[in-house]
Amino acid sequence: MDKVKYRTLTPEIAAELKRIVGDAYVIYGDKERLEVFSHDEIPGTEYRGMPEAVVRPDSAAQISAIMKLANLEKIPVTPRGAGSGLSGGAVPVSGGIVLCLDRMNRILDIDVENMMVEVEPGVVTNEINEALRKHKLFYAGYPMSLETCFIGGNVAENAGGGKAVKYGVTSRYVLGLEVVTPTGEIVELGGKLVKDVTGYNMVQLMVGSEGTLGIFTRIVLKLIPLPEFQVDLLCMFRNTEEAVGAVPRLMTVSGIIPASIEYMNRIAVKGACEYLNESIPYEDCGAMLLVSLDGTDQERLADEYEAVGLLCREHGAYEVYVADNPSISERLWRIRRNIGEAFNVFSKRQSGEDMVVPPASLPAMVAGLERIAERYGISVPCFGHAGDGNVHARLVCPPEWSDDKWNSELPMILDECYRDVAALGGRISGEHGIGCKRKKYMDKVVSPEYISMLRAVKKAFDPNWIMNPGKIFDL
Amino acid sequence: MDKVKYRTLTPEIAAELKRIVGDAYVIYGDKERLEVFSHDEIPGTEYRGMPEAVVRPDSAAQISAIMKLANLEKIPVTPRGAGSGLSGGAVPVSGGIVLCLDRMNRILDIDVENMMVEVEPGVVTNEINEALRKHKLFYAGYPMSLETCFIGGNVAENAGGGKAVKYGVTSRYVLGLEVVTPTGEIVELGGKLVKDVTGYNMVQLMVGSEGTLGIFTRIVLKLIPLPEFQVDLLCMFRNTEEAVGAVPRLMTVSGIIPASIEYMNRIAVKGACEYLNESIPYEDCGAMLLVSLDGTDQERLADEYEAVGLLCREHGAYEVYVADNPSISERLWRIRRNIGEAFNVFSKRQSGEDMVVPPASLPAMVAGLERIAERYGISVPCFGHAGDGNVHARLVCPPEWSDDKWNSELPMILDECYRDVAALGGRISGEHGIGCKRKKYMDKVVSPEYISMLRAVKKAFDPNWIMNPGKIFDL
Repeated sequence: MDKVKYRTLTPEIAAELKRIVGDAYVIYGDKERLEVFSHDEIPGTEYRGMPEAVVRPDSAAQISAIMKLANLEKIPVTPRGAGSGLSGGAVPVSGGIVLCLDRMNRILDIDVENMMVEVEPGVVTNEINEALRKHKLFYAGYPMSLETCFIGGNVAENAGGGKAVKYGVTSRYVLGLEVVTPTGEIVELGGKLVKDVTGYNMVQLMVGSEGTLGIFTRIVLKLIPLPEFQVDLLCMFRNTEEAVGAVPRLMTVSGIIPASIEYMNRIAVKGACEYLNESIPYEDCGAMLLVSLDGTDQERLADEYEAVGLLCREHGAYEVYVADNPSISERLWRIRRNIGEAFNVFSKRQSGEDMVVPPASLPAMVAGLERIAERYGISVPCFGHAGDGNVHARLVCPPEWSDDKWNSELPMILDECYRDVAALGGRISGEHGIGCKRKKYMDKVVSPEYISMLRAVKKAFDPNWIMNPGKIFDL
Repeated sequence: MDKVKYRTLTPEIAAELKRIVGDAYVIYGDKERLEVFSHDEIPGTEYRGMPEAVVRPDSAAQISAIMKLANLEKIPVTPRGAGSGLSGGAVPVSGGIVLCLDRMNRILDIDVENMMVEVEPGVVTNEINEALRKHKLFYAGYPMSLETCFIGGNVAENAGGGKAVKYGVTSRYVLGLEVVTPTGEIVELGGKLVKDVTGYNMVQLMVGSEGTLGIFTRIVLKLIPLPEFQVDLLCMFRNTEEAVGAVPRLMTVSGIIPASIEYMNRIAVKGACEYLNESIPYEDCGAMLLVSLDGTDQERLADEYEAVGLLCREHGAYEVYVADNPSISERLWRIRRNIGEAFNVFSKRQSGEDMVVPPASLPAMVAGLERIAERYGISVPCFGHAGDGNVHARLVCPPEWSDDKWNSELPMILDECYRDVAALGGRISGEHGIGCKRKKYMDKVVSPEYISMLRAVKKAFDPNWIMNPGKIFDL
């Protein structure tokens, strides 16, 4: 735990916060309303923390004033977007202020000529693409929560998602940031520039820093020409081994880079279908790959999906369904997007994992996971971004286990999983972040020298250690 | 200038260096041999500095020992690759040790399944692609000096180059680094992972840090399927305005992303052709665009180059030559690659610029440059990566000017150029780096708060300020 002693947020400080953002935009002394901001989307109650106040600023200037006050008074500040995170990154584990960015939700500039868009952090990710459609432009980030998450959170966590195989993760598209530092300075990093070596790459240091180095108040994103056509292939395999085994082949042999290669094992598909009251023919199927191809040329796409379909069959797919119209595509993707939520509803006793390994080591990672699950007698729906070597495994507690048993076995299970991942050259998070959830496991996959390096950088930005403390690593 | 007092490199320290790397790999007390390491490729003598010793280590362990010694003794250390830089980044401006990485030139692992390659920093960039060709894989970095520069220097400077429009700059491909820190720790950052949020993005902080934060000893690069086919279009325009004016259209209207859009004005082409004893029909031409398209599908490429050629004609090209075979392509690119060298030979009195603006502001930047050049009566060959908004202008001293006149006018000219660039939201370096050459102009385009942020990060890594001091900013 952080060794820092923080001060209590007094009524005087609350009054000062109200002066900065306006009375209506501060929650203080109202336990029920504060409670909403005490957690993110992690199931269960383990990763929670009550804020002492919630403030909802409207501008960088207001945020600067809040940070200066908090830095002076030694009050921790935890930035928060939509609260859709899965690592406890937006949870105020040391109390203090939750700085909620929901009012900063403007699309500031659609710059067609530069193929860029400038947004505030509180814009819902999907709304960006809605606004861009008429310009035939596209923001290529595609987190599974895109209908609710905020772009600011995507940048803070360096969100990955379904299209990272072809388009890369959030970081590739972030060109510029206006940032309020932990000491309250407003600093411009990068800009509308596709190249820039005028100083260190502070933009990319900020992306994925989980709100521990500063608060983004403006974000410049690079766009690409809208890939107008998309074809999805649902490839059915008898078992996981064959499904994930086909992925490295798909990536290298075809010369085609799919937009997505999503893997779902049978338990995962079944859970989502039941949750959505949806049916797809998964009965004989041990595991599926959902492969998306996209582009601006329909004929070429047809050639590509035939080649990819053939390749899947050659590598063990016993059936390949083609979804070449938006409504069937959306049906398939809805199943994929809702797996997480389906299992959240099913049980609060579970641990959502986000391990990542070199893409070609994916079959080894998944096989290891299944062995561990079998040995402990737990159920593990597996799904995720197979093309990136990033799979989400839900370790689900069997209904008959006591809480005590679950709480004592889970750390052992995780320890084994992470040891396997480390041996494959992997890490414990590909896109969800470390937050407070995975902090205690960092030393399983990275060196003490690396953590010291992170700590030194953090101290350089935040000498009083007030900016989202208790995340990633401790002081 | 840096306020740090460094110690002199004594014969005892030189002996210790010899003990670490072997007698044969230390140059000490031999002025003639040391002189080679006192400069990079900047013409003239302004940005030079004599090292006290040159060491040529062979491993991370040796580099670690050197850094521990230097840190203890407060001796500056300047890492150096091929010395092909253009910003004085590898020049030991405070003396001390030049750490030359030419012996660490092994390609360690071509990992076809993961589409990655692991190399040491001293590998010549082009050799990577030579080694990858038989696997039909491709490293997409393409600096103009690729036949001589080292990959380590590309990473240190975040080199851009000819294919960044489509493929991005070096940073996009760097997934993992083994780094020796200024205090001598060996730290693993990233890895064979296409996604990783396990801690801050230290890999991307290192890329482009110009050797001021650490020395890269192993580099993991992401590869792409080799684009087997390439077509180049040489598009002739009457004047610069029309040529650069066509670029934003090319980028947005066609929906096609060219691999390169290189701009060359008449003076630049003429200089290179004379230098190479080469002839292309530039007589009626004020400016050219060299547009490259590449891909894995020859038919599609044919469609694309027709569309792009047509678009260029619609936007003012009076002639479009098609180079659809490797030997003609190479002839054109050789002209492009040799412009810099041609003008180096022509005069030592010049300043090579690397300004970058939002891509759509390129016409405004180039027009501004030409106005300034005309007013001062100097010649400005202009060339570079128009698709990225990054143009290299050589400010060339008229032969009749005295040295005094040149030395007094150049800062005024640069001041005006940089002011224009700042007004367009641009920066003073897109890919060559700040080094010691542009350090004094940093405050023209970035805020004091930004420079303070860089300084704080540097101090976190290098408390004794020994790692390539005097570059980018001072203590």
